[in-house]
Amino acid sequence: MAERGARLGADVDLPGIMANRRALVDAALERWLPVQGERPPQVHEAMRYSVFAGGKRLRPLLVLLACEAVGGEPADALPAAAALELIHTYSLIHDDLPAMDDDDFRRGRPTCHKVYGEAMAILAGDGLLTEAFRVLADPGAGRVPPARRLQIIAEIAEAAGSLGMVGGQATDILSEGRAIDRETLLDLHARKTGALIRVSIRAGGIAGGADAASLAALTRYGEAVGLAFQIVDDILDIEGATEEMGKTAGSDARKHKATYPALFGLEPSRQDAARLLSEAKAALRPLGEKASPLAALADFVGNRRH
Amino acid sequence: MAERGARLGADVDLPGIMANRRALVDAALERWLPVQGERPPQVHEAMRYSVFAGGKRLRPLLVLLACEAVGGEPADALPAAAALELIHTYSLIHDDLPAMDDDDFRRGRPTCHKVYGEAMAILAGDGLLTEAFRVLADPGAGRVPPARRLQIIAEIAEAAGSLGMVGGQATDILSEGRAIDRETLLDLHARKTGALIRVSIRAGGIAGGADAASLAALTRYGEAVGLAFQIVDDILDIEGATEEMGKTAGSDARKHKATYPALFGLEPSRQDAARLLSEAKAALRPLGEKASPLAALADFVGNRRH
Repeated sequence: MAERGARLGADVDLPGIMANRRALVDAALERWLPVQGERPPQVHEAMRYSVFAGGKRLRPLLVLLACEAVGGEPADALPAAAALELIHTYSLIHDDLPAMDDDDFRRGRPTCHKVYGEAMAILAGDGLLTEAFRVLADPGAGRVPPARRLQIIAEIAEAAGSLGMVGGQATDILSEGRAIDRETLLDLHARKTGALIRVSIRAGGIAGGADAASLAALTRYGEAVGLAFQIVDDILDIEGATEEMGKTAGSDARKHKATYPALFGLEPSRQDAARLLSEAKAALRPLGEKASPLAALADFVGNRRH
Repeated sequence: MAERGARLGADVDLPGIMANRRALVDAALERWLPVQGERPPQVHEAMRYSVFAGGKRLRPLLVLLACEAVGGEPADALPAAAALELIHTYSLIHDDLPAMDDDDFRRGRPTCHKVYGEAMAILAGDGLLTEAFRVLADPGAGRVPPARRLQIIAEIAEAAGSLGMVGGQATDILSEGRAIDRETLLDLHARKTGALIRVSIRAGGIAGGADAASLAALTRYGEAVGLAFQIVDDILDIEGATEEMGKTAGSDARKHKATYPALFGLEPSRQDAARLLSEAKAALRPLGEKASPLAALADFVGNRRH
């Protein structure tokens, strides 16, 4: 992989950092989610079943590392980190529903509606989305000043809404089985997965008190990583083994979903992903050593097998 | 109806106030919702179809009148008023889905999923819920100080989430066809409809700068009106004509849904509603003449035919 970002991130113990930050995020989710015994127990069980389903916690990790890259403490960014994982999880629950992508497995386990039924799955998703905003506004969570917290809420809502992720999912469903052009595919990816990854980085930066130049650098990183992540996802769907992905490999092609390799070819897709990740690392250079973990994370996204 | 609240609200031109505030709310919704032409158009059409479907705008009206009852300007409470209508609308779209209550008509028109399909209806609901929080955090909307706006967001999210409205809807679905006791029914009503009505009143009060005593008075009003509203709704479902309700009368009984009159009898239910509305008006007395429209609204809730 071409390395315009030089050696930034080369000496980072990324697995150690990931395990540490993941524990922070899981503890926060455990603390902030309503407990299983609350009435009615079924909906709270369904919420926790999907939140604690072995997800990679990529979005929370981006939030925390972006906050640290501008000199903030992880604790300042924990509400945004937890909220973005809740929003990501709700979107998976709703995407998997029979009326949507109709998937029975996710991360190697039965999907939420297969275990709890469609009604509870719809409501669990609604509950998680709402809980995300409760956590973001919780007066007891974090010490970021109110005006900055409002900015984070507004940006996350815009990225997750019908002009962002929800709109991307709608375009994806409406495009099934149809030929779509380059512009539509890039727009779909930018919204469906890109918007939430981009705002994860921005929310972390804002929580950490980033100045305008640092926030712009983080945003360039987030946009490049977001598209690269989706391209790699599309490539893995073609090549990946079912057991590693935890969902049926080739399922996008079977549903005639628009993918990056289908439109541009497999090898050009690999090259585009590598170029984007290199650009992402280059964007971090003004932030210095504090951004090393984010640079290492870009490599991790490029090399992941599931 | 017993009148412990004396004549507060007797001289109010409620129809005029309702028409005026409704126009304010509709203009705000029109301004803040993404325009119909945004990609993909289907999901934005579905969102607008349900938002502009002839709803009573009861929750926004409660928000604005509560704000005015403590001396605030309607403009201060418009973001909360719009957000609560968006949340109410999303909840109706999801409740009507085949996997939930499976209703084909709402307010005399085909439900969202009958017109746009299940996938777009799920996504339109998700989009409206998310948009509600974007509006609440929008830096360009309103002039309420950030800390108070965060409090409003946290309270609305708690009321709308799995410990509030979403939990109430889950209990409602899980209770279908089963005998439930008095405690469960009151808990169900408090969450499914009561929580959003209560927080409408509180959000308006907070936006208007209510002190602790005024906010407590408004909260008592909101809790009493919320339960009375649901009791009247249950009574109307038994008695009401299909054309006036805009949905099939008797549908709750047909689905073996738990209702207040089914558990307590029709005449005791009428008496309880009247007593609650009288208590609601009494709670307003410390607020003086500024609360007259809220008092008149309590009578309106008691006398409504649909």
